[in-house]
Amino acid sequence: MKSIITLTTDFGLKDHYVGAMKGVILSINPEAVIVDITHEVPPQDVFCGAFTLRNAYGYFLRGAIHVVVVDPGVGSERKPIVAEADGNLFVGPDNGVFTFVYLESSHYRVFEITTPRFMLSKISSTFHGRDIFAPVASYLSLGVPITEMGKEVEDPVRLHIRKPEVKEKEKEVLGEVIYIDSFGNLITNISPDLLTPYSKVFIGKRAIDRIAKSYTEVEPGELLAIEGSSGFLEVSVNRGSAAKKLDVKVGEKVLLFKALKSKEREST
Amino acid sequence: MKSIITLTTDFGLKDHYVGAMKGVILSINPEAVIVDITHEVPPQDVFCGAFTLRNAYGYFLRGAIHVVVVDPGVGSERKPIVAEADGNLFVGPDNGVFTFVYLESSHYRVFEITTPRFMLSKISSTFHGRDIFAPVASYLSLGVPITEMGKEVEDPVRLHIRKPEVKEKEKEVLGEVIYIDSFGNLITNISPDLLTPYSKVFIGKRAIDRIAKSYTEVEPGELLAIEGSSGFLEVSVNRGSAAKKLDVKVGEKVLLFKALKSKEREST
Amino acid sequence: MKSIITLTTDFGLKDHYVGAMKGVILSINPEAVIVDITHEVPPQDVFCGAFTLRNAYGYFLRGAIHVVVVDPGVGSERKPIVAEADGNLFVGPDNGVFTFVYLESSHYRVFEITTPRFMLSKISSTFHGRDIFAPVASYLSLGVPITEMGKEVEDPVRLHIRKPEVKEKEKEVLGEVIYIDSFGNLITNISPDLLTPYSKVFIGKRAIDRIAKSYTEVEPGELLAIEGSSGFLEVSVNRGSAAKKLDVKVGEKVLLFKALKSKEREST
Repeated sequence: MKSIITLTTDFGLKDHYVGAMKGVILSINPEAVIVDITHEVPPQDVFCGAFTLRNAYGYFLRGAIHVVVVDPGVGSERKPIVAEADGNLFVGPDNGVFTFVYLESSHYRVFEITTPRFMLSKISSTFHGRDIFAPVASYLSLGVPITEMGKEVEDPVRLHIRKPEVKEKEKEVLGEVIYIDSFGNLITNISPDLLTPYSKVFIGKRAIDRIAKSYTEVEPGELLAIEGSSGFLEVSVNRGSAAKKLDVKVGEKVLLFKALKSKEREST
Repeated sequence: MKSIITLTTDFGLKDHYVGAMKGVILSINPEAVIVDITHEVPPQDVFCGAFTLRNAYGYFLRGAIHVVVVDPGVGSERKPIVAEADGNLFVGPDNGVFTFVYLESSHYRVFEITTPRFMLSKISSTFHGRDIFAPVASYLSLGVPITEMGKEVEDPVRLHIRKPEVKEKEKEVLGEVIYIDSFGNLITNISPDLLTPYSKVFIGKRAIDRIAKSYTEVEPGELLAIEGSSGFLEVSVNRGSAAKKLDVKVGEKVLLFKALKSKEREST
Repeated sequence: MKSIITLTTDFGLKDHYVGAMKGVILSINPEAVIVDITHEVPPQDVFCGAFTLRNAYGYFLRGAIHVVVVDPGVGSERKPIVAEADGNLFVGPDNGVFTFVYLESSHYRVFEITTPRFMLSKISSTFHGRDIFAPVASYLSLGVPITEMGKEVEDPVRLHIRKPEVKEKEKEVLGEVIYIDSFGNLITNISPDLLTPYSKVFIGKRAIDRIAKSYTEVEPGELLAIEGSSGFLEVSVNRGSAAKKLDVKVGEKVLLFKALKSKEREST
């Protein structure tokens, strides 16, 4: 049976870790199609793993199996889990990596993984990606129902996701940078329905006058604000890095004025 | 239908971008075989994307589909295109990334991508890799003819590729470094037919006395010149990095004396 | 015929090298399933390539073909070889990259690759990964016997692998760090059968009082010693990098006291 298994980890690409996981998966189901989402989640950064998964998994066919191993609590009491949400399957530690899946699915169920026959025979205390999550994902790809993995988990761990503060009267939105990509684009937590074309954006003592339709609306090296491909307001630099230009980090505040004298602004 | 789709981008491997593209491709054609050429083209470096593609695509079976997304003009007027050249297919922005394909093929045709049914239903202004190029490549892998994508483009964008200056009388060739690989090898634009075994190479105030047959002809840490695997003269260091040793960048001039008193030289 | 071919190289991911190898493999056997172990072996570091292979290949189905290209002697007299060991196949240079395979297999045979029809028609002097090892691996995946590659090699090159010094009387083991992973975990050459729960570990002027069962037994930022997933004692930092905290490199000495007044220790 041909199934897609995606991998999102903080293992990096230098070591043998990802290769060993793939070996385990293909030994159980040689027909599995393995797709790397990323292995460069910053070490132990559960939010980054959760956000990366959120931005990718919806583009796969329903029924795909998504493994996330960002697992600082490996070997401790934290549970290994399998989740089913809107027809997709998720395998990883119960530490909040599936927070966005729970938030954005119409229904989901979560099961603890306790059944030894779906794990490797020897379980290390530091590498459950290889010893538990990879074999479980591969057995799921062969059609094993998630209910066979163990008992249902009623209250899986969720990260607290900060929403932007919307002040309707002042037409202000106070959000923040939640992710910085490898181009240096600053992804905020402000969703596009809060934007108008004449919104003004303030970040790091800089003001951006309007929402651009493409990077090339400003000169190379200049700042812009744009509706990004992940469904959030982003602050970018045409042919450059906004993170470098503004020298900001995740958590930086972003203030949005929804519409400020739009007509006058247009004519200036 | 099993087809190869290769990916060459500047997206890096940290974010979800490559994963999302693969999800789109496999959702349209689950049998597609996706091969990464690289995702570490330096951001917005169209020449590097073009040169990397040139060095890889010829090793794939005719009929493969090669997607290149190095796309600083995404969302602007630059056209998304499909090219057919000597039986291979190419998908990407019309910004010169296919320059070497045009130069080194016996024939090619280029079509603008304008047909909405081969794109995702919602097109972002910053991520055409996912929204246009990935689905188009996948539909091509299912056998959709490129002529269905849109109108033919008569004059696709080409980069200006600088050729070395050959002074036949002085038996001199003045070239330059066009690419530096991750080992620190300096790839020049001087092709092997300009070399003789006793050619002398000057670069960054250093002289190299002859063209080596293997890295190990010189001591570890020493400079050498060699016919590289991409079909150009390269300057390297045995077990080291020529880029670091010489502290040079792309664009550095390279002077070649084709044959300088070869017999005397050999005996010294 | 569907076969797994794994790749372990020091090529990095920036250039076209890995993509070209995959093109060659898929041109000869379009059904081959290619799995990357890593391409980020430090340049020319044969031991790292050998150790990475050792940690990964045992997780693949018997019969898989493992290609390793860490090849500082490319183009010189060093032999290109194929090895068969316990039913698995290995392709690469005869420079010691298969040392652990020889050490840990019950039997093995090694053949030099000299038969031109299993290579590309033009062999460069700098990229045998593409021109020799990739096509040979792909022909092997089609069922070509290794005996057709060339003559048997009686005495393939092996790296000298330093074993820890075990002083039974003093109950001391003197080992060393042999590999540092991308989390900064320090992998030693001390195997778990030498450990007791109350072993005390000394490294870089620091003492660690016992062997932990999980990273979370100590506070974030604190040092611990643990049986690692590769089957060796590791020194780690909970949610941090032991390599950074201790500022140590490969070769750092590690001293283990096997059991030091365990009961008293437990009660303190």
